[in-house]
Amino acid sequence: MYSVDKYPSKILQEAVEAIGSLPGVGSRSALRLALHLLGQPADHIHHFTEAINRLSDEIHYCKTCQMVSDTDQCPICADHTRDARTICVVESVRDVMSIEATGMYRGVYHVLGGIISPIDGIGPSDIHIRELVERIEGMDADTEIILALSGDVEGETTSLYIYRQIEGKGVKVTTLARGLGFGDDLEYADTLTLGRSLTSRQPFKP
Amino acid sequence: MYSVDKYPSKILQEAVEAIGSLPGVGSRSALRLALHLLGQPADHIHHFTEAINRLSDEIHYCKTCQMVSDTDQCPICADHTRDARTICVVESVRDVMSIEATGMYRGVYHVLGGIISPIDGIGPSDIHIRELVERIEGMDADTEIILALSGDVEGETTSLYIYRQIEGKGVKVTTLARGLGFGDDLEYADTLTLGRSLTSRQPFKP
Repeated sequence: MYSVDKYPSKILQEAVEAIGSLPGVGSRSALRLALHLLGQPADHIHHFTEAINRLSDEIHYCKTCQMVSDTDQCPICADHTRDARTICVVESVRDVMSIEATGMYRGVYHVLGGIISPIDGIGPSDIHIRELVERIEGMDADTEIILALSGDVEGETTSLYIYRQIEGKGVKVTTLARGLGFGDDLEYADTLTLGRSLTSRQPFKP
Repeated sequence: MYSVDKYPSKILQEAVEAIGSLPGVGSRSALRLALHLLGQPADHIHHFTEAINRLSDEIHYCKTCQMVSDTDQCPICADHTRDARTICVVESVRDVMSIEATGMYRGVYHVLGGIISPIDGIGPSDIHIRELVERIEGMDADTEIILALSGDVEGETTSLYIYRQIEGKGVKVTTLARGLGFGDDLEYADTLTLGRSLTSRQPFKP
């Protein structure tokens, strides 16, 4: 006797399970997405899966800054109009995209590819800190390393770890300004941010 | 001069666009999912894409009920302990799964693969109504067609259209009972549901 073990088709079930393995995609969403794909023409599905396969088969990482790239050198490192002596250290390519979107940065990047997080089992050797240390070897005080990591415990820990690795190498190390965001209300700012904003107060520029 | 056209890699960009073409997946989620996949081992990615490719390359539709299946006949139609003279007409395989989950239905199904929706350009010939009409050809008054479509305008329209196609063929046509859900409060029921619940009132069974 047939008993519906949830799915009438093993092929459908395996597709749902594959989609449901993505972070933040529940089993109902996965079924909805699988049925959507099922209703698409074959060439659309193949286009979809080829685009994803290329992520593993054709992607490169920039040999200088470790950013995801189509070639051995990413377009930012290859751009000689950018200041190669200002290196912004970020967690991921997402952060690069956020900073590039500001249009206010003309230096280059170093993408760690993660953040030190003992709770997730990610230690210093799991991210590209060694490559950063090697990269600044021989650079001088004209070089600035901007630690642009997130303001949470993992970000602060990673910043401190990197600082310990590169202090004494003769390069300048800075970090992002923390403070009130533009348009923020004092009343609703958390005490840590407001406190840091006070102690890091800056000359008023009219 | 390099200008970040959002993505440092065309391969990444195309993967994000492919994932973002899924319904309900925004561009931020698509980037998050693409970067997640990027961090996975190659064989994991290939397993993922193969499962999806099989949706177009290996899936079958049951020749009797049009349900997605791994073979030419779905496991429900192939199950001879089920009552082939009770045919439940549903929109999609999702509805089959919902009804099967109740464990209270022993008949078979007919999957329309959609619902009549002029606004989405879906007419009667785009869904499996013709197959249903052919299927009940020669069946008699022992056959019951249960129209189990959703209670919205499209569902009601489709039910009515199907009814017009099969009335006079000698088969019994029923539809799902509409009324208050179990545990529903009268106070919070919408007037249409409460009204229908009243006019379709049933003998009290203690």
